[in-house]
Amino acid sequence: VVCGQIQTVTLIPGDGIGPEISTAVMKIFEAAKAPIQWEERNVTAIKGPGGRWMIPPEAKESMNKNKIGLKGPLKTPIAAGHPSMNLLLRKTFDLYANVRPCVSIEGYKTPYTDVDLVTIRENTEGEYSGIEHLIVDGVVQSIKLITEDASRRIAEYAFEYARNNQRTSVTAVHKANIMRMSDGLFLRKCREVAENFKDVKFTEMYLDTVCLNMVQDPSHFDVLVMPNLYGDILSDLCAGLIGGLGVTPSGNIGANGVAIFESVHGTAPDIAGKDLANPTALLLSAVMMLRHMGLHGHAKKIETACFDTIRDEKVLTKDLGGNAKCSEFTADICRRVQDMD
Amino acid sequence: VVCGQIQTVTLIPGDGIGPEISTAVMKIFEAAKAPIQWEERNVTAIKGPGGRWMIPPEAKESMNKNKIGLKGPLKTPIAAGHPSMNLLLRKTFDLYANVRPCVSIEGYKTPYTDVDLVTIRENTEGEYSGIEHLIVDGVVQSIKLITEDASRRIAEYAFEYARNNQRTSVTAVHKANIMRMSDGLFLRKCREVAENFKDVKFTEMYLDTVCLNMVQDPSHFDVLVMPNLYGDILSDLCAGLIGGLGVTPSGNIGANGVAIFESVHGTAPDIAGKDLANPTALLLSAVMMLRHMGLHGHAKKIETACFDTIRDEKVLTKDLGGNAKCSEFTADICRRVQDMD
Ligand SMILES: CC(C)[C@H](C(=O)O)[C@@H](O)C(=O)O
Ligand SMILES: CC(C)[C@H](C(=O)O)[C@@H](O)C(=O)O
Repeated sequence: VVCGQIQTVTLIPGDGIGPEISTAVMKIFEAAKAPIQWEERNVTAIKGPGGRWMIPPEAKESMNKNKIGLKGPLKTPIAAGHPSMNLLLRKTFDLYANVRPCVSIEGYKTPYTDVDLVTIRENTEGEYSGIEHLIVDGVVQSIKLITEDASRRIAEYAFEYARNNQRTSVTAVHKANIMRMSDGLFLRKCREVAENFKDVKFTEMYLDTVCLNMVQDPSHFDVLVMPNLYGDILSDLCAGLIGGLGVTPSGNIGANGVAIFESVHGTAPDIAGKDLANPTALLLSAVMMLRHMGLHGHAKKIETACFDTIRDEKVLTKDLGGNAKCSEFTADICRRVQDMD
Repeated sequence: VVCGQIQTVTLIPGDGIGPEISTAVMKIFEAAKAPIQWEERNVTAIKGPGGRWMIPPEAKESMNKNKIGLKGPLKTPIAAGHPSMNLLLRKTFDLYANVRPCVSIEGYKTPYTDVDLVTIRENTEGEYSGIEHLIVDGVVQSIKLITEDASRRIAEYAFEYARNNQRTSVTAVHKANIMRMSDGLFLRKCREVAENFKDVKFTEMYLDTVCLNMVQDPSHFDVLVMPNLYGDILSDLCAGLIGGLGVTPSGNIGANGVAIFESVHGTAPDIAGKDLANPTALLLSAVMMLRHMGLHGHAKKIETACFDTIRDEKVLTKDLGGNAKCSEFTADICRRVQDMD
């Protein structure tokens, strides 16, 4: 990555409102003169040799070349045996860390005003191993797989993240009182890694206690690291605290700089194509992406413009409490971005 | 159970603040002339033949005889291999349903004012099976076990509960998009049972979506039924919405009327013995117990007195925002109970 050079990012617009909010992001990036060019790819699953579902080779090649992707929502397939494309993408590119910063948005009213935390979810194993058996009729087992390597890797990611983002503490979230071996292994790795990050405070908490304390006073939390399923739950809970999936960014990070940033809300088929969608989650995910690429100036500019538009309360999409169209909301952010020059 | 007759209940005061709050409950029951006599038992674990941990025979016999128990908090043992006594009790008496009504308490301020829901947690299997293996060095698996019988049983309990408690809907909470076989089986049983309860509305939701919606607007939820771990998480989350474990009752229900009602907060060793504890959670659990025993009049009276004391805000324990002692708080409830006669 040479500074000043234009970088290519794989853009997966996705389904439903995906194309509209992708267009919004592209417009705002253009207004901000972000040195990004987009390579659009579709990821509708195809059946590969042997009948296994896979993402189309054009999308895979593009990601492998560009290393960075931005993704809108994908519809959940209903066919039996069809995997979630979100999971397939995480798996295909070994995107082992799911990172979701949750920060209260000034002007967007929720019962909480002081949320400022990041959930870091192990994205490759745990309850998502996909290994299940029918033991005898009426008795099923699902296997939760925890490995030393994946646990160490995610713990290291969390501590590095805390250090690089001026955060002061990492909390390991677990149920090692119940799953003594699996969550026990995860926790042990977190403790070991913590030893190498003496500048970052380390604490451990039970998942149930975290949920309880989170809804009572989220301001105490900083960086939270946890196995796959717990992250699925807690990241959605925390998104709820700041206003929901419509305003919450997300990044899936792999090794060697590979990463896909995505909005984690649905495809909203009821409003698709009507210029009513809220592009905030995808835009803030794109801002995370810019930071990941080292483009901090552009990130700050776009983020500030977006939050200013929301705080201003004049041009808001319906879900944010206004009656502006997606294009009007987008134009307001573009104008602010341009005014900063 | 003959009406008007005095019934014996096994009382397990527990550790830390357990004895104080148990005394508070006994005093209030006396003031309310509840036709209950207590049989106090201790459940410190003992090692049985073959080295297996078990609850003391006196406690077991008492529970088997009385069928109904009330339990304060138990300290979490730290010895390796020592099971949680809470789990051992659930197992020993096959208490398959963990029931936690969460209702906003007037006068006790939280960000939510309109919570009125019940979590019903499968209490015997799932992620709590205790089966774990080391596959190879650094790779551990935990087994989540879901059976048809336990799933049907808890689903039936949930629908019966809804019907008998004038509730209108049951929501099955699951991750069958990920654990297709295990959560899939659980969900299928819920659907089947729903067919027999046409008077109760049935819906299904992903656990992550429930967590998200719950913190945004809990008023939409009614009865929620779910596998073990999800219940552990969600019941604590919901307790947080109404003010925490200090005010949330809980019941563990088995077959043939056997049940143990318990406060699910900790032993609070820092304030134990100082007359500072808040007996509300244990008292409201005892109120649930009275209802379970068909003593609705006494239940209503005590519950009303307790809520009146809290709403009045004059005599509150420290955790509730006041500076009264446990005994003063208790006396205030007793006075109100007596005034109702
Ligand atoms: C779409 C679904 C498979 C996914 C998950 O369960 O991980 C989603 O909830 C998420 O959090 O990204
Ligand atoms: C004490 C602990 C083992 C227990 C659990 O995990 O079930 C507790 O959190 C609960 O909810 O009763």
